[in-house]
Amino acid sequence: MPPIITAFEESPDRGQGLARDMPVRWALEEVGQPYDVRLVSFGSMKEPAHRALHPFGQIPTFEDGDLALFESGAIVLHIAESYTGLLPEDANAKARAIMWMFAALSTVEPPIIQREFSHYFERDKSWHKERLPMVENLIRSRLEDLSRRLGDGDWLDCETFSAGDLLMVQVLRRLKGTNLLREFPELSAYVARGEVRPAFKRAFDAQLAIFTGKSRHRGEGDACSAGASHMRR
Amino acid sequence: MPPIITAFEESPDRGQGLARDMPVRWALEEVGQPYDVRLVSFGSMKEPAHRALHPFGQIPTFEDGDLALFESGAIVLHIAESYTGLLPEDANAKARAIMWMFAALSTVEPPIIQREFSHYFERDKSWHKERLPMVENLIRSRLEDLSRRLGDGDWLDCETFSAGDLLMVQVLRRLKGTNLLREFPELSAYVARGEVRPAFKRAFDAQLAIFTGKSRHRGEGDACSAGASHMRR
Repeated sequence: MPPIITAFEESPDRGQGLARDMPVRWALEEVGQPYDVRLVSFGSMKEPAHRALHPFGQIPTFEDGDLALFESGAIVLHIAESYTGLLPEDANAKARAIMWMFAALSTVEPPIIQREFSHYFERDKSWHKERLPMVENLIRSRLEDLSRRLGDGDWLDCETFSAGDLLMVQVLRRLKGTNLLREFPELSAYVARGEVRPAFKRAFDAQLAIFTGKSRHRGEGDACSAGASHMRR
Repeated sequence: MPPIITAFEESPDRGQGLARDMPVRWALEEVGQPYDVRLVSFGSMKEPAHRALHPFGQIPTFEDGDLALFESGAIVLHIAESYTGLLPEDANAKARAIMWMFAALSTVEPPIIQREFSHYFERDKSWHKERLPMVENLIRSRLEDLSRRLGDGDWLDCETFSAGDLLMVQVLRRLKGTNLLREFPELSAYVARGEVRPAFKRAFDAQLAIFTGKSRHRGEGDACSAGASHMRR
């Protein structure tokens, strides 16, 4: 039996691939491991059955035999450790790739999430216009540092794509279409390099198929059969 | 030569052990690995020499032979992988311990950092009083979920302390003295269980010694000789 992941039944980003099943799908596609998907509604995510898998009532989860995991970074690392293709063999290079995974999620992403929090919950507040630039300057500072380190390299550590790049590209994708990312052409090009990878495209198409399937046939049937391979209810 | 970590020359939290060298020190103490400390000023952190080690110009860094790492979560994981005592031997239990490391840093910590951001940069703003409860409700939601999962267990996954508990306790320590943490007695007790560990105490005392040494002898000499073992300039 292939591993089973969970994803949103109703894509909150309308298939842009920003939900956290996306890096897990991408990692599985990079290593060539087929997977099944179980879709969950916003309601059922908060029910005890799902919370037994994910105590914070979110997606994704990952079930493989006796093992059940939540937290996308941990799932991607588990996949990277279990198959070849996402971590270098050299021990030091591997430690650095994992370092970039943490850097993506702990240092670069949090201010980007703050910006989204502002967008979703504060855009009608009187303070939004004054506060947003404070958050954006924090993001800009992180992007400056990241861009300087990346330089003209293809990937963050030497010339080989790793799980660190996978998570960093996925984090930066949250800024697509913003001036923030456009200010850093090296980072825009870095994101584009990630997005043209065949594994990225397969993962992206698979999550998009849920949204387009739902759009066309909302409530009429099995969303999981709408396009993506390796899916089941 | 023991590994070398970097820490703040001037403790911004006055020795409360909330800076990110603390989890690295704690991990090294748990596995019994002596270490050296190089103190860096706020100015020198942003200089090219330090940025070569840490592209975001922060602490901690970790140097061990040919390997140089930044990002406290990655350093703790590297220590946990390199020595015994912080990760279970069973493969599935190990994956779950690493999952809790990511959960601490990616799910529980970010809203806590948002609250600190508000405290430091927005407490004089007109909106602070209205906005703070929004952030605190987000934190509260995470703590509720975490507390429910912990239940009456000693540690997050079975009865053995792991690197996941180390990071989670350290994240929750940021809320010490707040009503938020007091609302969850199980989590307060969990933090206390972490803090009475001998390795925690040694790590805490070592970072405190820098602050108290600086307080008594500010500018008069070698802060690194002020109390903690395994330290050098």
